[in-house]
Amino acid sequence: MTTETTRILPDSELVALRDLAAQLRVDSIRSSGAAGSGHPTSSLSAADLLAVLLARHLRYDWSAPKAPTNDHLIFSKGHASPLLYSVFKAAGVISDDELVGTYRKFGSRLQGHPTPALPWVDVATGSLGQGLPAGVGIALAGLRLDKLPYHVWVLCGDSETAEGSIWEALDKAGHYGLRNLTAIVDVNRYGQRGTTELEWDLDTYRRRAEAFGCRAMVVDGHDLTSIDDALRTARTATGPTVLLARTIKGRGVPDVEDKPGWHGKALPADIADRAVTALGGVRSITVAAPMPAPGQPAVTTPARGPAPDLPRYERGAKVATRKAYGEALLALAARPDVVVLDGEVSDSTRTEAFADAFPDRFFEIYIAEQQLVGAAVGLQVRGYRPFAATFAAFLSRAYDFIRMAGISGAEIKLAGSHAGVEIGADGPSQMALEDIAALRAVYGSTVLYPSDAVSCAALVAQTVDLPGVSYVRTTRGSYPVLYDNGDTFPIGGSKQLRGGPGDQVALIGAGVTVHNCLAAADRLAADGIAARVIDLYSVKPIDRDALVEAVRITGGRLVVVEDHYPQGGIGAAILEALADLGEPIRMSHLAVRGLPTSGTTAQLMDAAGIGVDAVTGAARTLAAR
Amino acid sequence: MTTETTRILPDSELVALRDLAAQLRVDSIRSSGAAGSGHPTSSLSAADLLAVLLARHLRYDWSAPKAPTNDHLIFSKGHASPLLYSVFKAAGVISDDELVGTYRKFGSRLQGHPTPALPWVDVATGSLGQGLPAGVGIALAGLRLDKLPYHVWVLCGDSETAEGSIWEALDKAGHYGLRNLTAIVDVNRYGQRGTTELEWDLDTYRRRAEAFGCRAMVVDGHDLTSIDDALRTARTATGPTVLLARTIKGRGVPDVEDKPGWHGKALPADIADRAVTALGGVRSITVAAPMPAPGQPAVTTPARGPAPDLPRYERGAKVATRKAYGEALLALAARPDVVVLDGEVSDSTRTEAFADAFPDRFFEIYIAEQQLVGAAVGLQVRGYRPFAATFAAFLSRAYDFIRMAGISGAEIKLAGSHAGVEIGADGPSQMALEDIAALRAVYGSTVLYPSDAVSCAALVAQTVDLPGVSYVRTTRGSYPVLYDNGDTFPIGGSKQLRGGPGDQVALIGAGVTVHNCLAAADRLAADGIAARVIDLYSVKPIDRDALVEAVRITGGRLVVVEDHYPQGGIGAAILEALADLGEPIRMSHLAVRGLPTSGTTAQLMDAAGIGVDAVTGAARTLAAR
Repeated sequence: MTTETTRILPDSELVALRDLAAQLRVDSIRSSGAAGSGHPTSSLSAADLLAVLLARHLRYDWSAPKAPTNDHLIFSKGHASPLLYSVFKAAGVISDDELVGTYRKFGSRLQGHPTPALPWVDVATGSLGQGLPAGVGIALAGLRLDKLPYHVWVLCGDSETAEGSIWEALDKAGHYGLRNLTAIVDVNRYGQRGTTELEWDLDTYRRRAEAFGCRAMVVDGHDLTSIDDALRTARTATGPTVLLARTIKGRGVPDVEDKPGWHGKALPADIADRAVTALGGVRSITVAAPMPAPGQPAVTTPARGPAPDLPRYERGAKVATRKAYGEALLALAARPDVVVLDGEVSDSTRTEAFADAFPDRFFEIYIAEQQLVGAAVGLQVRGYRPFAATFAAFLSRAYDFIRMAGISGAEIKLAGSHAGVEIGADGPSQMALEDIAALRAVYGSTVLYPSDAVSCAALVAQTVDLPGVSYVRTTRGSYPVLYDNGDTFPIGGSKQLRGGPGDQVALIGAGVTVHNCLAAADRLAADGIAARVIDLYSVKPIDRDALVEAVRITGGRLVVVEDHYPQGGIGAAILEALADLGEPIRMSHLAVRGLPTSGTTAQLMDAAGIGVDAVTGAARTLAAR
Repeated sequence: MTTETTRILPDSELVALRDLAAQLRVDSIRSSGAAGSGHPTSSLSAADLLAVLLARHLRYDWSAPKAPTNDHLIFSKGHASPLLYSVFKAAGVISDDELVGTYRKFGSRLQGHPTPALPWVDVATGSLGQGLPAGVGIALAGLRLDKLPYHVWVLCGDSETAEGSIWEALDKAGHYGLRNLTAIVDVNRYGQRGTTELEWDLDTYRRRAEAFGCRAMVVDGHDLTSIDDALRTARTATGPTVLLARTIKGRGVPDVEDKPGWHGKALPADIADRAVTALGGVRSITVAAPMPAPGQPAVTTPARGPAPDLPRYERGAKVATRKAYGEALLALAARPDVVVLDGEVSDSTRTEAFADAFPDRFFEIYIAEQQLVGAAVGLQVRGYRPFAATFAAFLSRAYDFIRMAGISGAEIKLAGSHAGVEIGADGPSQMALEDIAALRAVYGSTVLYPSDAVSCAALVAQTVDLPGVSYVRTTRGSYPVLYDNGDTFPIGGSKQLRGGPGDQVALIGAGVTVHNCLAAADRLAADGIAARVIDLYSVKPIDRDALVEAVRITGGRLVVVEDHYPQGGIGAAILEALADLGEPIRMSHLAVRGLPTSGTTAQLMDAAGIGVDAVTGAARTLAAR
């Protein structure tokens, strides 16, 4: 093999490339065969593409997978993992024993679909249409931040082009002129249950890609010389490239080539054996892949420095937490690795101040929430700290992306503004009322819901270096600042705003409802009822100790009030934490049980039974029990 | 006005149309002005389009909004509700008082974004990119099922074309040749916070629409004659039409025309007053809109007939619930209004038997889950009973669509197969482990998780006429049939599979974990520990009475075991139901707490601590407390 990537493929190297492709095929067949499951035919169609890419175009120091200069290789069609892992064997980083002996087995890092448990995998894939959006994020990092010449290569399936997210990604690739991004579409014309919509209509694929701002090239995906030419052209393009490769599913195994019914099935032993023999048997070629040029990113991730100079607020002043969020981002901008993305609502989420001050580190993703999260996932692959914001309701559009970010262990920081009935007149389509349930259930997530500007800024600052997906829910309206500048708000903690050892009832809120709890506590105090008020700003992880104490002090009399549907939200988080306590709990759970409409905040809170009257009434009833 | 829609627009009618357009503008300004919020400028850009559509092309019997022959009008840009409601005034179905006096106010049906609380609104919009996918569903109903000549007109914003779902919709419109669908894109070149990606690059819009299989027409969106010609052409097209209208945001109000910073803001009184005067003041034109031709749909929704002849299973035989789901659909096919959609995985979800037997009532949506749900929402607008299936994990891709379906009160029936670690080797990207939390939190949803084939078929059958969004979670593997044919499984109920008055502990599962509970109960019985086993097949609504009884009998000793992350799932549902009970609960909550990998079902269940050993151990510990 060669480390020269600019030279036209000489005939003398064709033999070696053919051998490599045959090895990738043989290993895809063997690994899935040994596992008894997997997607060999989806791997076979792309083996020639990957052979040429690996040997001649993927500039990658396989001994240093996190080297900033490395190219990136993403299998958006993650089910072709037999091929990806066969590439890893050919790169010399996994052994044949690991490949054939452990694929898809319990305890193996060679899982059914790739995850970053493998150091050469940037993002988990397997939910189609997500690898390319993440690739867009990496390419943005390369072009706009790192300013390094690495290239992002994404292998897509043809079936997944039916996902709208692919078009969100190509649109952004075109918009940002991502010349360092190539989508290689393996057009093998078969999906899981039959032919794809477009089969081998390469011309329609081409017109779509071009209309979305990309250079499209059509090649025979089994012609090594053509592939080589196309990949070389892609690397030197002036914009994003979509390489449309006409391929044959199952290529190399005549028994299954271009036949339906062979998706996602290991080949029967007789077919597999015949094929492996015909392909020349087991090989152990290790490729001397092209190395990246040396270089350093223009932006480097600092060691954790001094605490940021957070915005300060006057206690009692009315400030929206979304405003504090935006101002906290500005303060965090002192760290060069902090970047911000928005879904074309930066005037609402209040990321616009950051956008104005640091345009090089702000990415306008427009109304494309899937790509918003996908880009954030890509940016964090390169060590950036992406803060992505939109209306909380519209994060639901990206839920599958957030789910996969959790599986990737991606460190992304989401903010959802305009949550709950609090938003008022815009009505239920704009009211996130299920976001806490949804975000809590994401693997490794952190869910924060600050009640005031001071706590919001302090919490946002803590998410910078927080592992996993973090989510901050902010509020549209302005509410009094409750805390002093410098107060601390540990993640997993809570604040007791009222109360003492004689409390008869505990009022527990988070975010906007904390203010209702405080007002109710004042009224109850006037009636002689002592109420503890807890600001449960950290919904996940949750402050179990404070909750247990509240139960013990009040005899289990808890009023929980949330601007969210009753399922899976703050009430559920509290109950889950107390599930094994074994002490009686009498929780009055105030949540949005009907379908909200338009109205003022006060009207909608009262109608939903989460306003001050409702909290007060529930507490009185409990205290009398 | 005229009821003649085929005639070229005579000059004599231009005056009346201009008056109507001016009225729509004036009323959009007045209604949002009185509300103090809303999106007048986004309404003004489309006023001419709607004037021509209403007066000359929308064939609609305004006295009978549910007439099957009516055209359909969807505002995918739901924020232009001032214009939509002004159209309703011009159609004579709401009064000026209601329009100006109640818009966006508490108690009004004229909410900030349209919902089916209004009889002329098919689906709730306000989350961009969803009206067109629903329109595709209605158009599918018209062309393939109703076989009526109604036309579906969808007003889209230009910003929302950044949503991938728009391209999923146009792709399906092209694929299915939906000649009865016209997307009118109001290209006013401004989004919320500034200009759109493509501004007035109509040619790029045109190439995109054409590449996705639609006929594209570009018009001046303020030239009434051109609009009229284009709409007439669209009605008689041989495929779907995208009418790209170059418009000016704020058109008709010189102070704000084509200026940034006026999105989503009521006009100040002085500007509004000047504009209303310049536009000719307040009018009360009522349009005699074109009437639809009489007709009856080819398929009619039957009155609830006799119980379906459900598939029968032998107790103890191993049958996957996904198989029972597919067989139940076949049985339900006796009802002509039952239709099925799949996301290109019908061989996995087992909808393929229905697809084979009833191809006219099966819609292959390919890998486009947003459109899968959007089409279901559209089909139910016309009274069909859509069952939409994909892997449970991939319903997360459509979460915003499901959320909005809840707000629409749409009756859609979702099935998610391959849930949880039970699926085995494919790994976490394919394992729904957050679906129960997410789906429970949808307004008006029903969440069912049957453990065996008999209960699965019985539950699926009950969802046919169930209001709202219903969700059935099915299982990949085959497990023993637990029930007798004919057993009943009321929604909101549960089944006690083991137990009596002396139970020391209750084992509560749903779906696959019921089998683990049964095996554990057998082991516990051998140890002399009496364990109640509850099959909580109805997760929402939940059988509170059975849970309370279990708490009382066992002293609150509950082992809850779920193949789901611990947040918001079955454990949370149980705790929410018992929150106010005031009796001690010692719940051992077994759920998937780590990130799963590949492996066998048994390995992964054991690793997650939800296998038989874990259930048995947890029960022993609790019983000893």
